[in-house]
Parts: sequence; structure tokens; C-alpha cells
Amino acid sequence: MSDIAAAITEIKALLGDRMNTSKSMRDLHGQNEAYFDHMPPDGVAFPRTTQEVSDIVKACAKHACPIIPWGVGTSLEAHALPIHGGITIDMTEMNQVLNVLDQDLLAVVQPGVTRESLNAELRATGLFFPVDPGANATLGGMTATRASGTTAVRYGTMRENVFAMEVVMPDGRIVRTGTRAKKSSAGYDLTKLFIGSEGTLGIITELTLRLQGQPEAIAAAVCDFPTINDAVNVVITAVQMGIPMARMELIDETSIRAINAYSNFDYPTVPHLFMEFHGSDVGVKDQSESMASIISEFGGGDFQWSTKTEDRNRLWAARHQAYNATKALFPGQLGMSTDICVPISKLAQAIEDTQNDLNECGVTAAIIGHVGDGNYHTLMFSDPNHPEQLALNKQLAHRMAERALEIHGTVTGEHGIGVGKMKYMAQEHGDALSLMVDIKRAFDPQNIMNPGKMVPMN
Amino acid sequence: MSDIAAAITEIKALLGDRMNTSKSMRDLHGQNEAYFDHMPPDGVAFPRTTQEVSDIVKACAKHACPIIPWGVGTSLEAHALPIHGGITIDMTEMNQVLNVLDQDLLAVVQPGVTRESLNAELRATGLFFPVDPGANATLGGMTATRASGTTAVRYGTMRENVFAMEVVMPDGRIVRTGTRAKKSSAGYDLTKLFIGSEGTLGIITELTLRLQGQPEAIAAAVCDFPTINDAVNVVITAVQMGIPMARMELIDETSIRAINAYSNFDYPTVPHLFMEFHGSDVGVKDQSESMASIISEFGGGDFQWSTKTEDRNRLWAARHQAYNATKALFPGQLGMSTDICVPISKLAQAIEDTQNDLNECGVTAAIIGHVGDGNYHTLMFSDPNHPEQLALNKQLAHRMAERALEIHGTVTGEHGIGVGKMKYMAQEHGDALSLMVDIKRAFDPQNIMNPGKMVPMN
Repeated sequence: MSDIAAAITEIKALLGDRMNTSKSMRDLHGQNEAYFDHMPPDGVAFPRTTQEVSDIVKACAKHACPIIPWGVGTSLEAHALPIHGGITIDMTEMNQVLNVLDQDLLAVVQPGVTRESLNAELRATGLFFPVDPGANATLGGMTATRASGTTAVRYGTMRENVFAMEVVMPDGRIVRTGTRAKKSSAGYDLTKLFIGSEGTLGIITELTLRLQGQPEAIAAAVCDFPTINDAVNVVITAVQMGIPMARMELIDETSIRAINAYSNFDYPTVPHLFMEFHGSDVGVKDQSESMASIISEFGGGDFQWSTKTEDRNRLWAARHQAYNATKALFPGQLGMSTDICVPISKLAQAIEDTQNDLNECGVTAAIIGHVGDGNYHTLMFSDPNHPEQLALNKQLAHRMAERALEIHGTVTGEHGIGVGKMKYMAQEHGDALSLMVDIKRAFDPQNIMNPGKMVPMN
Repeated sequence: MSDIAAAITEIKALLGDRMNTSKSMRDLHGQNEAYFDHMPPDGVAFPRTTQEVSDIVKACAKHACPIIPWGVGTSLEAHALPIHGGITIDMTEMNQVLNVLDQDLLAVVQPGVTRESLNAELRATGLFFPVDPGANATLGGMTATRASGTTAVRYGTMRENVFAMEVVMPDGRIVRTGTRAKKSSAGYDLTKLFIGSEGTLGIITELTLRLQGQPEAIAAAVCDFPTINDAVNVVITAVQMGIPMARMELIDETSIRAINAYSNFDYPTVPHLFMEFHGSDVGVKDQSESMASIISEFGGGDFQWSTKTEDRNRLWAARHQAYNATKALFPGQLGMSTDICVPISKLAQAIEDTQNDLNECGVTAAIIGHVGDGNYHTLMFSDPNHPEQLALNKQLAHRMAERALEIHGTVTGEHGIGVGKMKYMAQEHGDALSLMVDIKRAFDPQNIMNPGKMVPMN
């Protein structure tokens, strides 16, 4: 039987004040960026070393106390909600960049380092870490949720950008996976197994990340289109032609309206593509020209390439603010963001179907997406005083998920399973879900690591 | 207790003549491309459908009979040697390309399709499957061993190029992993877990593979260098500058001698780089020019870019024949090929250390490698009448493996574990090996899938 109080007492003896059970701290870690009810944990621990994480986990294991790893809480599916109570382990005090191996294009970091702080530390090296989900998430959280974002179309997701890790297992053992070599055929790929496991198999305490050289040239552009379909067809053609886009973002009419208001732009209120190319001067020019010819073929508007850093920064800041900008369009409303990822050939149809669903139900929503990967998001709003509106939004999200599965896609391209998408695990994976249960049971027989998430254990 | 004879009787009832126990067929499947003794299985089954594979596995499970999946037997570490006896399942009759999804740049294939036959089928589509280990291996075998080869530096290994699969589990259940979407955050990454599992977790019966568009332009070149160190430093610089090489192969002096004799070239007998660039006309020209300036910086000889298909085909055929060409230099000798992969900053030192080891011991060997990935191979020879020579070669391979681990590399970049590298699993993975054992035990509690490989189960 679980004895959370006993675990807390033991951890207090280890960490002192860094085992915090104040109401305010618990409340802070009971929040979520999604639409789920507030749910505070029984306490919050702030370890500073791998050994402390191991000791905390051992204390929890002894008392069968649930453990919920926490980065900065930017998950959109409530990954860190303590649905069975227990102790949240806040990793933000493990926030050191341990080693920049510039010649190997690698960085060794603690999991509480955020992507922006890593990139700030890297500035002088000419290197950068490319994965960019928008939120300034911790790298541990990004790994645990297999995050991606605007640049995944070029540089891959966390799946492709974590070489090695150190993990504290549910019994407190400290293990290391992977090496600094670019590839290996030695053994089961445990690194990939922990990436995206949402804290259900262990706690990541160190990461070796792949870096990229700052490209010689970067060009960004914004282009408007008569319809979403035209914009998406541009992207499909570019993907099929193998044009190496660094970013390729669809912004629908509603989102453009939001961005104009929030970030002080004056784009025409029609669908847009925001895009970026990285490479040599010659390469970027070449790619831009190929893109321009595809855009004109599909009726895209005039556009200009911008190579100025400040213009690009302003553009991508606006893109990253789109979520908050759209929320600001609907003050007092509850936002719900959902995402799916589909094969590129089905993308235009999938988005059109979603738009039709939204129109049919009279729901105002924004569609925005990393369309170069076939990944898009719908952000819907509801009045907190009318819970039936949230119920309708959930139903629309459900249609998106079902459609994704019908066309050989996935119920989430990057937001993850968390609490919100548990119900699709069986539908997406079929019998393969039982293999995930086998792994969970083998690694965490007491089911103390973020219980109730990812795999159904009952 | 294992009752192999009973399993064979049951499978004969299912497959008739396609359950073959003739001496010749068993002998054929008891061979290996490595230096291990011949060891025939008790029988060889030739399934034609997933259902047949499932039925075979169920019969084997019932009688605890070992199962060894077989592609075309080109493994260099004896992955398919039946070290505990049992039934080899030859997958070569499951050799259909089931679906080419040209718009999604995907192909769905059975595991017995070889990479060359897939590319032959794709010719009319303008697409190709990039992973190229040299040998015309089956795609199932390549997946099971996480194969890579000359183009991995650009397109990744099998790890990056398998989207989804169907697998028959050790109890006969048929499961599917992955989707046709480019990315997903839904659940543990089972696809990556099966890639590289060497037949120890299940039998792959279908694969969804990522294809690439044929590049608009391809340019290949050959360049000689005064020393291996100069050649490797060119590669390190190009990697650090982010030049997108499609192929970057180091060929040492001995291999050049072999290639000249075997494939009728007249390269100077000094170390060479064989390289290739893919992209648009402008992009390839740009990359070639950047490369040329690095090469001149490190004292590389004159070279010319060739864009003619026949020249390139001849070049890469010669590269792929290097193994046989080198064997032909040492007629009657037993070849032993071993590989490691190291962080790029350590590559020059690692190769130099290997050369010193070889010189010190007076062993004639060839060093050749996919150096853009930090991966290289040493091919050593021994007189079959002097087993102490093979023992010495093993010792030299051992030094390579130990060195790889000392510098944060891996004991095998692409050849895999098989029989030859089992002894390094504990050393490379430490406590993480116990997690691999947990997975193996959970999926295959009877230990019937390629037993004795990958993870120690006693």
C-alpha cells in the first residue's frame, strides 16, 4: 500500500527545505496548460544531483509513492498532473550545461536546462540546438514528451536529437544509455525507448544532445494564399520535391488576425505560410527560388525573403506567440489545443475536414501547424460557464484523432498522450499496446512512475 | 524442455516441402560470412505469409524450439548462426513490394525484398531507398541489424528509415507498430525497439520504409591524400562545417591496391576519399566547391567531379567490392571484418591507433570506413592452418572495441552484435544491459527467438 506521508518524511530528511509541502508550491505544480482541473501533488521535491534523484526514488519505491517528474509545466496534455497523488519531482534545480563538445557537435546537459538557456550558452560557439516547440520548455521535459516544433521538418524531433542519457530507474538504479557515436548497432535502442515515455519508465537526469552549426545563411519569408488548401498544396509539392525547408508553418486566417492584433503586424487576414531556409548563401538562394516557383504555381501572394536577424526574430516570436495571441482574441475563454500528424498526401483533406467539422458545429477555432511534417494543431475555445462548449470541443478533437487513425496517421504528432489522449492508445496501437504494458511492468513493477499515464495498467 | 523434432513435424504439416530438413539446405543456412565455424540448423522453414510465420512460431513456442530468422545471410557477426540448434525461418519467399505510396515517399514491403530489388521496382517512380550497406541484403535483415552503409551520413541508418512494421511475437501474436506519419508522440517507440533487435524479440513480417526523391544532380569524386590522417581531417572539417555529404568513404592504401587489381582502376596506392553529393544543380556545385577548398587545405591531390551515371556506378561498385577485392589479394586466407564507431573528433586518433596496433603485430589489414559517421572497418586475414593468426586478429579487434568504449564510442557502428560481439554488451551498456534483459524476458519468456544472441539470458 502506498504511504505518501512516510515517503515525504524520508525525503525531508534527505533534502530539508527542498522537500516542499506548502500549499502554494503544491498548487503551482497542480496546474496544467490544458483544460484539466487543477490537482496539486502531496509535495514537491527539488533535487540537485542524480544521487539525490536516486535517493528520492528509493524512498518513494519503499513506500509505493507515486512520482511525477516536472520540467516547467508547459505540456498541453497534462502529462504532469498527479492523478494518483504523490510527489512531484521538480527538475529545474538541475539546470547546468555540463559540457559542450563543440568538435563533436554535442552538448551534455542536466534535464532542467531550458532550450533557450542552452542556446544562450551556445551563442559564442557558433552552434545551436535546433528543436523548437515554441514554449521555453526544459530539455528533460522535451525528451520525455518527444517534443518537436517548427524546425523538426529539417532537424528532426527530440527522437533524432538525443544521443545518450542517464536515467534513474523506478527502483533508484542509475543507468546510462547510448554513446557519443552518431550511430550504433549494439543492442536494443533504450535511448529511443525513454524518449517519449512521459516519465513512466524513469527520470532523466542527464542528456547528450546533438547540436548544429549556425548556418552561413538564413532566409525567412511570409506568403499569403487564397485558401488553406493552396498553402498546403505548396507544402506537399515542396516535400515531394525534397526542398530542404528549415521551417514551414501554416497560419490560418484566425491565427493571422490574432498575430496582427497581438504582435502588431498587418498581414492580410487570409491563410499564410511562414517559412525559413538554412544553408550556404548559394544554397539558400537556390532553395528560395525553387520555393518561389512552387508558390506562384499555387496562387500565393507576393512575398519577400528576409535575411535580417531582427526581422526573423520578430516573425518567429510572433509565431511562437500565436497560442497566447489567439487566447487574447477570446478573453475569459478556456483554450484547448489538440494536434494530429498525418501522411503528407492526406494533409490538405484532413485540414479541410477539420474546418468543415468546426464550421458545422459553429466553433471558432484556429488551425496552425508544422505542415512540412504533416502535423497540425487546432486551438478551440469555450466559455467556462458553459461546460457543454468544452464537451463539444472535445468531440471535435475526437473527430480529428479518429480521422488521423483512418488515414494511417497518429493521434498526436508532438503534444503527447498525457491525460488527454490515453483513450486513443488502444485504438492507435492495437495489440502492440500490450507490449508497452509489458515494458512498463518490467521496468516499474510497482507502477510508481507517473502512474495512470501512457499505458493502462489495470 | 525443447523438442525440436516435434516442432518440425508440426511445421511440416503446415508447410509441406517448405519445411526443409535436407542436409544441403541445412548446410546452406549454417554458413556465415564471418570467421565462425559452420553450424547447420535442424531445419529450414520457408513461409509465404504472415499467418504462416505466426503458425510456425506457435508450433515452435509449443515445443520451446529455437527460431532463427534468416534473410540472405550477409551478416558479418554471425547473427543467424543457430548456436542452440532449432529452426531457421528463411524469409526470402516473402519478397513482395506491397505498396509504393509515391506521394508520401513510402514503400510497404515484405521483409524478404532485397534493397536492390526494391530500388529496381522503384526506378520508374523517381524515388529510391537510400540505405546502402553494400551487400544486397534483405530489408528485413537490414532492419533487424540496424544496418547503415555508405549513404547513412546523409539519409540515416535503418533507424531513421523504417516508419512502421508488422512483427510476429514469440507467442505467435501479430502486432503492428508505427504509422505512416513522419513523427508521433503517441506511446513508447516500439518500432525503434525492434530495429536492431537481431531477431531476438520477434520476426519482422512487413516494413513501411521511407523513400527519397532521386536528386536532380549527383556528383561523385575520388581524391588521394598523403596520409590517412589528412583524409580524415578533411572529413572532420566537412562534418563540423555542416556540408551535406551524401557519401564519404575512406579507402586506405591496401584497399586501393585491392580495388585497382579487382576492378581495374589505376588509382595511386595512397589513401583516398570516395565521395558523393546530392541536391539541385546549384546546390551540388556549391557543396563540391566548399569540399574542394577543404581538400586543398589538407593537401589532397587533384580530383574531378563526375556527374556521369556510368562513372559513378563503376566507382560505387568498386567500393562495394572492396571486401571481396581485399579477400582476393589474400587468396586462401580467412577474412575477419570488424567495425567500430566513434565521435568524429576522435576518429583520426582512433584510426592511427589501429594502424599502429596492426603494424606492431605485423598483421596485414585493410581499413575502410563510412568516415562521415565516424565509423570504420578493419579487415584482417589469417592462414586457416595457423589458428594463432586468427587469435591475434581477434585480439586486434578487441583493442579496437576497447578503444571505442574509452572514447565514448560504440563497439559496432553497423555490423551488429551477433555472436562476435556478445562479450562487449556488458562493457558498453553497464547496468542498462539489465533493462535489455528485462525487455527480452517480457517479450520472449521462453527465450526461443534467436537465443544466445544480443542479451545474456543466464
